[in-house]
Amino acid sequence: MENNKIKIGIIGLGTVGCGVVKVLSKYNDIEIVKASVKNIDKKRDVQIENLTTDSYEIARNPEIDIVVEVAGGCAVLDVLIEAIKNKKHIVTANKELLARHGAQLFDLAREYGVVVLYEAAVAGGIPIILPIKTSLAANDFNSVAGILNGTTNYILTKMEEENIPYDVCLSKAQELGYAETDPTGDVEGFDAMYKIAILANIVFKKRIDINKIYREGITKISAQDMNIADELGYKIKLIAQAKQLDCGLDIRVHPMLVSKTNPLSDIKNATNAVMLNGFPVDKVMFVGPGAGEFPTASSVVGDILAIKSEIANKGNVLPMTVCRHSDYANQINIEDTKNCYYLSILAHSELGVIGKIGCACAEHNINISYVIQKGINEDNNATIIVLTEECYEKDINNMINKLENENNIHVENRIRVM
Amino acid sequence: MENNKIKIGIIGLGTVGCGVVKVLSKYNDIEIVKASVKNIDKKRDVQIENLTTDSYEIARNPEIDIVVEVAGGCAVLDVLIEAIKNKKHIVTANKELLARHGAQLFDLAREYGVVVLYEAAVAGGIPIILPIKTSLAANDFNSVAGILNGTTNYILTKMEEENIPYDVCLSKAQELGYAETDPTGDVEGFDAMYKIAILANIVFKKRIDINKIYREGITKISAQDMNIADELGYKIKLIAQAKQLDCGLDIRVHPMLVSKTNPLSDIKNATNAVMLNGFPVDKVMFVGPGAGEFPTASSVVGDILAIKSEIANKGNVLPMTVCRHSDYANQINIEDTKNCYYLSILAHSELGVIGKIGCACAEHNINISYVIQKGINEDNNATIIVLTEECYEKDINNMINKLENENNIHVENRIRVM
Repeated sequence: MENNKIKIGIIGLGTVGCGVVKVLSKYNDIEIVKASVKNIDKKRDVQIENLTTDSYEIARNPEIDIVVEVAGGCAVLDVLIEAIKNKKHIVTANKELLARHGAQLFDLAREYGVVVLYEAAVAGGIPIILPIKTSLAANDFNSVAGILNGTTNYILTKMEEENIPYDVCLSKAQELGYAETDPTGDVEGFDAMYKIAILANIVFKKRIDINKIYREGITKISAQDMNIADELGYKIKLIAQAKQLDCGLDIRVHPMLVSKTNPLSDIKNATNAVMLNGFPVDKVMFVGPGAGEFPTASSVVGDILAIKSEIANKGNVLPMTVCRHSDYANQINIEDTKNCYYLSILAHSELGVIGKIGCACAEHNINISYVIQKGINEDNNATIIVLTEECYEKDINNMINKLENENNIHVENRIRVM
Repeated sequence: MENNKIKIGIIGLGTVGCGVVKVLSKYNDIEIVKASVKNIDKKRDVQIENLTTDSYEIARNPEIDIVVEVAGGCAVLDVLIEAIKNKKHIVTANKELLARHGAQLFDLAREYGVVVLYEAAVAGGIPIILPIKTSLAANDFNSVAGILNGTTNYILTKMEEENIPYDVCLSKAQELGYAETDPTGDVEGFDAMYKIAILANIVFKKRIDINKIYREGITKISAQDMNIADELGYKIKLIAQAKQLDCGLDIRVHPMLVSKTNPLSDIKNATNAVMLNGFPVDKVMFVGPGAGEFPTASSVVGDILAIKSEIANKGNVLPMTVCRHSDYANQINIEDTKNCYYLSILAHSELGVIGKIGCACAEHNINISYVIQKGINEDNNATIIVLTEECYEKDINNMINKLENENNIHVENRIRVM
């Protein structure tokens, strides 16, 4: 039996690492040989006998079959390269590393006959990577869209349900441990961007340049935007999406007004959701916990068990999971995409304001589908809400510039409509 | 290349079979060697050169690697046994066969070193079987619940949205091809029962005796039930579920009042949904098309591709998919389960009716959480709606007997509350 044990090395023993150790404890045939940490003396609620501060000891340990990387960040890249060269299979939850350096790791893994699995890197406990590569493998997808960041969805849910401003919700999220002290990675959409890059890579079988992904966070969403969206039948969500258009791949992360009839509008708090649209399957949606010690461990250990089940085979382990494409996607610029827009406009209340807005829209080929003036404040300024029909992003931008520069009409927020 | 082709035999060329042929047409390395049909001369919108009426020609054809069974029904059992004995992998969409004879097929497949995959048998295009066996393999599940029958969900959605009675909705569903001429299999819950048996088998790793599954269809749901449920904050759905209780496995199919805050209440028309609850993952939900030519073909071809990817390995194909348990679940009787109930009671309006109902409930240890009398009709009969707290099914049944036999109070419908 001893010799049939699968030997694991773990890089990183933070929240997720500890969850993985706890969940693995029920498997007698999986042995954690060694774990690497930054600080050996730090108190943890799991006990690992063999700790090291040198991750390369894990990458090079001849006993180890699978290297589980739950440290995060890109500093670990070279260690994983070394591990692959030492013929270790990799299980990682590291979305930033995969979004930035996935191609390199996948190529190397194919060369060395090992697999890189990363179910936990996108949407935490939700099975999504393997289902796309297996059960849904017959599909040509048109689009993938989702709520991929729990922190921002928690903040937006609180803003909406308790009618409190962004800053207050952020502080609350930080107190509860849902948001980090420096929340930039979440609230500015970086985390969701990494995840949609990873998803788009396997959904469209093209490599993604994250520098070409349009990204906008949630920091500009106001309580007023929330309220007006609600009145109009929408919720505001941070949506990460990638769509195959005739002219290329449209991939981006930004807040959107999501119709209450769209199931994504019902996704609350830290829950994540991924929606896929393709042929022959049509539309499927996956919903579940996007983060957390145990949900993430569920995916990490699922990957470990998948490798374990095939490791005795003479032949390839999990060949369906191997990345076999190397072309980059033709990612189109958001300026060249068409969207519907919600505009929140603050204008000095005077004769002809609505007319100026209407004319500016018409000049830029923008059809207005809805307009409402929401009362006048003490400074004699009025809030005017405009919903547009589908129009080019570049036209909206030019129109907004014109309003602001020539007409002294301030566009407080511009949110795309899903 | 010719020799590296995977060779397929298809049993059944109905809607799903034709969908599979169409989807497979884009794969140059998959060849359909032969298909068996009942009637060779029937017009089909796909062309297969080599047709036979004898399915055993497929089961025994030495060229064929994978037998795809999309004929349905249990008559095909012996053919599949023969195919397994001839070392063919099996891909099937046949829920009734698997629910009734799955154990036999799985045992035999393990003996002969082949796999039986059946992603399409439950929830059509939704990836659920493979994710449970792979990405979610680290979990101990408490429950699985879902909307697994598109026909009944379509009928219930129409009843609710258009406020029309069951019979009219059924006719409409039959006209549109959502329901069969004999709708029994769907509306009486057999189809959902087969599917929950298949799911419970893999979720709890125990074999399921379908004869011990409690089953109740939707034919008794009235437009009035729908309306009152809506007023009380519920929708009525046909729910298939299995829960691990201390005393055994509680597995059943019946209509339920589902709170509008439960995501299952939002699943409309022919869409299916499966919700899993376990540790470490917590709650995950899968939503998508439950049937149809192409969604079902998506799952069938996904299974074919999974086998194809591993067939060249020296070793086991997809070992994680092999059924390794043979114990039967300890399935508990619904009489011994606790539930909350909605009761629709028709009583002659006279002094003390509510009192009689209240007393009968108290005598049987049933706490009432809500009661309302909904007006009196021309016969001087009143409709009284009762919601109970959690109580034993046997107590509710005894209480209802007492009301009907001793007090001449008619309980028109009793629906469990989720």
